[in-house]
Amino acid sequence: MTPVDLAPLLADLAARKPAALARAVSIVENHRAGSDQLLSALHAKAGRARRIGITGPPGAGKSTLTMRLAALWREQGRTVGIVAVDPTSPFTGGALLGDRIRMESVALDPGIFIRSMATRGALGGLAATTREVADVLDAYGFDRIILETVGVGQSELDIARTADSSVVVLVPESGDSIQTMKAGLMEIADLFVVNKADRPGADRLRNEVELMLGLRLGQVYKNVPAHHGVDLSNKSVARAARAASQEVDGDHWTPPVLAATASKGEGVAELATALDRHFEYLARSGALRERRRARLRERVVDAAERLLRARLWGDAATEAWLETQLDALESGARTPFATAEALLERSSARLVQRASERSPG
Amino acid sequence: MTPVDLAPLLADLAARKPAALARAVSIVENHRAGSDQLLSALHAKAGRARRIGITGPPGAGKSTLTMRLAALWREQGRTVGIVAVDPTSPFTGGALLGDRIRMESVALDPGIFIRSMATRGALGGLAATTREVADVLDAYGFDRIILETVGVGQSELDIARTADSSVVVLVPESGDSIQTMKAGLMEIADLFVVNKADRPGADRLRNEVELMLGLRLGQVYKNVPAHHGVDLSNKSVARAARAASQEVDGDHWTPPVLAATASKGEGVAELATALDRHFEYLARSGALRERRRARLRERVVDAAERLLRARLWGDAATEAWLETQLDALESGARTPFATAEALLERSSARLVQRASERSPG
Repeated sequence: MTPVDLAPLLADLAARKPAALARAVSIVENHRAGSDQLLSALHAKAGRARRIGITGPPGAGKSTLTMRLAALWREQGRTVGIVAVDPTSPFTGGALLGDRIRMESVALDPGIFIRSMATRGALGGLAATTREVADVLDAYGFDRIILETVGVGQSELDIARTADSSVVVLVPESGDSIQTMKAGLMEIADLFVVNKADRPGADRLRNEVELMLGLRLGQVYKNVPAHHGVDLSNKSVARAARAASQEVDGDHWTPPVLAATASKGEGVAELATALDRHFEYLARSGALRERRRARLRERVVDAAERLLRARLWGDAATEAWLETQLDALESGARTPFATAEALLERSSARLVQRASERSPG
Repeated sequence: MTPVDLAPLLADLAARKPAALARAVSIVENHRAGSDQLLSALHAKAGRARRIGITGPPGAGKSTLTMRLAALWREQGRTVGIVAVDPTSPFTGGALLGDRIRMESVALDPGIFIRSMATRGALGGLAATTREVADVLDAYGFDRIILETVGVGQSELDIARTADSSVVVLVPESGDSIQTMKAGLMEIADLFVVNKADRPGADRLRNEVELMLGLRLGQVYKNVPAHHGVDLSNKSVARAARAASQEVDGDHWTPPVLAATASKGEGVAELATALDRHFEYLARSGALRERRRARLRERVVDAAERLLRARLWGDAATEAWLETQLDALESGARTPFATAEALLERSSARLVQRASERSPG
């Protein structure tokens, strides 16, 4: 990668110029030249912001909730960076675009920065890129960073995992039953919000989520004598299991199931308070440090694999060589796996050579 | 990787024993020991089957269409392998599970093999795994392989790209407007099916898709004099543009927009016929060979990157070393990128050593 002179950009970022921020985010988002240098230069400045993931099915009102939460924090004097990850879906894109435009209209406030990220491009790289954009916002000095993703795929769950607190937004009509929620979602949720709580079925949904949480806690604590023989099949038992689990471990976090009607601003203050409580729990229990160290670890893994791929494929000769192998692959004379092994053989000297060039001796 | 004796399994596969097929698919699906060897052993036998991708939004009736199509092909004496990729969504899983169970009830016929694949696990690896499972089915001797995916994410589009023919299924209620369909979908669709065609809005949807195709072809052929100054803003113009484009290039494929009511079996024979026409087009134009070579190329890329990751991370000492770097990362004294570079430095000798061990000299 060609070295890029980032000094002017870094100076403008330090002076908190919004145009510099937008440019820095674009460089990182698109992995442009200088992206890794920029992230390295900003690394020591990041780590101050709280990162909140907001995920849920299409139409759950995530954007509205995000906007309301951001407005509340602004009233409290906090600055807010928002990374809204557009759905990967080629089917549901339209409806969300409207939300996005409405959201961007609040961006006249310099204390709010919003970036919508498309999900085209390298699969699996989306969570990494979102994390890196959040790092830029963090280093710039935002107090809160909201990562808003539509919960349609594994990659969105991966993004949610990069947050300090993950909020899962549900609506009464989002499914016939809470049974449609798979395990992955329960694992990442630190807080649930049943939005559009003025609609029929909202109370039932809240109860179902609570029951499910109770069942999960029942499983977690299944070896605890107090739960032996308990039938965890109804709401009161679920609540009892949760109460018992809190008794068993005072430092355990039980995801609250909040109600909100974001369009009217109802339940937003309660969500903000619950997020504060969750952050206090994270700090107190050591979970915050643990999550942040895991995030740093993932950053290294991402960077290492990206570097390795760049070294493997960054040479036109390798691509050309692969083309020459296609006839043998097509006839069945050679297998893809054997060809892959040959490719690595072929490239290994170059990989090592490059590595030694960087640190001779 | 420890060598595994696959001879008994390969013999059972050659004898077309269903239990052996199920086992082989499981080994490949879960990347168990012997997976690469197995695929290599089967490689020369694959390449005979036609692969059909069926994708679309949740609730479009893909499973029903898949089942009907499979039944039709069975009547024609063809064997059919089906790989149904479960949605990544933690929100919509429930509804599809029902379809899946219904589908599996047809699996009493030994001429049909169905495997539902979960999307948990390595991101980005899903398309690769689906392709490999399809290779096993292909080598086993199935005439047709259907890759059914719910079109909610990039990975599903990637899966569709591994097929010879991609069918995109839409329903009148799948969106307020065809505008919700993003570019990626138009790129992969070889055939469109408007399912539930007896519902209101089906004709309008077909017209909208045709218009969109017309616009696309208008763009493709924008340098052709016949299209100069043409306003591509209504249905008849769209059709004219399509007709003109076919005139311009007799070997061009225009995706047909079919109507079907899969639940009643209507439109299924027409789909099968259109698929035959598409396959003939692929064979005649050379596109089939091109697609299959691209698929082989991707198999090599996948295998190479998987090998590289295994070599990088397959050593507990590397993981342990990374843990020792977390303090410096946390304090900001070291950046993830610099740590990644150090990690590759550290591993490079081992990478090369392993490579040389395999082919000395």
